[in-house]
Amino acid sequence: MTDESRIWTAAIVIVGDEILSGRTQDKNISQIAVWLGVQGIRLREVRVVADDIDAIVEAVNILRARNDYLFTTGGIGPTHDDITVDAIAQALGVDVIVHPKARAILESYYNTRGGLTDARLRMARAPDGADLIENRMSGAPGIRIGNIFMMAGVPGITAQMLDSLTGQLEGGLPLQSLTIGCWVPESEVSDLLAATEKAHANCQIGSYPFFREGKVGANFVIRSTDPEEMETCAAALESGLARLEREAVRGGI
Amino acid sequence: MTDESRIWTAAIVIVGDEILSGRTQDKNISQIAVWLGVQGIRLREVRVVADDIDAIVEAVNILRARNDYLFTTGGIGPTHDDITVDAIAQALGVDVIVHPKARAILESYYNTRGGLTDARLRMARAPDGADLIENRMSGAPGIRIGNIFMMAGVPGITAQMLDSLTGQLEGGLPLQSLTIGCWVPESEVSDLLAATEKAHANCQIGSYPFFREGKVGANFVIRSTDPEEMETCAAALESGLARLEREAVRGGI
Repeated sequence: MTDESRIWTAAIVIVGDEILSGRTQDKNISQIAVWLGVQGIRLREVRVVADDIDAIVEAVNILRARNDYLFTTGGIGPTHDDITVDAIAQALGVDVIVHPKARAILESYYNTRGGLTDARLRMARAPDGADLIENRMSGAPGIRIGNIFMMAGVPGITAQMLDSLTGQLEGGLPLQSLTIGCWVPESEVSDLLAATEKAHANCQIGSYPFFREGKVGANFVIRSTDPEEMETCAAALESGLARLEREAVRGGI
Repeated sequence: MTDESRIWTAAIVIVGDEILSGRTQDKNISQIAVWLGVQGIRLREVRVVADDIDAIVEAVNILRARNDYLFTTGGIGPTHDDITVDAIAQALGVDVIVHPKARAILESYYNTRGGLTDARLRMARAPDGADLIENRMSGAPGIRIGNIFMMAGVPGITAQMLDSLTGQLEGGLPLQSLTIGCWVPESEVSDLLAATEKAHANCQIGSYPFFREGKVGANFVIRSTDPEEMETCAAALESGLARLEREAVRGGI
């Protein structure tokens, strides 16, 4: 029997000079986070580190030890700045090998695309003992070793890799969420939020203010693994807002 | 005299259950990164942590020690889930006080907006010894203590706070960048990239592949604090691409 109260966790290491320079807006955190949620796995921490072996090794070794799963994005391509495979091998204390199956996949993919050059063969490198994660989009596979999953930096490719991993990872009860929006300054309802959260032990309520159309409002996000208690909590929050003569908008604003 | 070779660094701690759940797409990393670049400060690492005191304290204490500056975003509002001030005070081993100037700012701001309630007064709380960071948008200020800068979670407010800090932080030579785009699979030019980077000691070249209009291409980003060497490096890369009969597009694709 599965222990339904067991919480499964994951972390992400984004290998990304391009994120740290501000040049590229990261899109992998949110897509992996949402995907993990569906698998019943909670994203606990994300680190964005430079394209630097020591920085990657440090982050990987801490996060793989304290989470069930660790995802990395970026640095698995064919160019000189792609060093994630080397860093993970170093973190695990294993050699880098050319993975025979990855080599075969790339040979087949590049058969009609100019052949498998030395540079392209770099994309078949993997830490010794690794398995592959299928990538229908560009041939070059992702890499799985132990509890580490190495994904692409390009979000569209990572999406394909996540797709091929769907249902493969053990998780717990998915954390569900329900949003209630309200045109109210959050400071006017903070006591209500705290009291409502306290009265529903298995729910957390997050408050996310916004400014739109010259007005202030907030979305209150209730998160729980228990759909019934989440509904009770939402109803309590809605009647609390009604008592303050504020209209609650299911689904958020 | 300023030591022009001194590299100034910063880190960011994003306090954000809403980022980790995938509900919200972070926009603070890129805006802070770009702003830091203009100040001559390099963003070295980012951590996204849960709304959890211990997680915030751990990240803050490691990152403030090994960087010149540490920015946090999120968790400084008036609701029960806003715990960043408490976490930073704990990390620094100081008390949380009600900052007199923050209280005065909030009293004035809420004078015509329903008055300064207990909940709103939470936004005047600060670690003992802190200074304020002006926020023209919503009254509640950011907080500066030592090398830590506590910014809002709402990107528009953080933008205002960054604006008021512009020119206030010591930095080094700004890291400049120049992008060359090319409709080429990066695997075909990886040797050229590596050789060009090696020949220009003060330049780094990042390669960022993309898939558009059914074709593969890549942007090559040259980064350097030396504009002249960056130009020489770009010219070398362009002629290298020309030798391979590939058209280089300044500014990227």
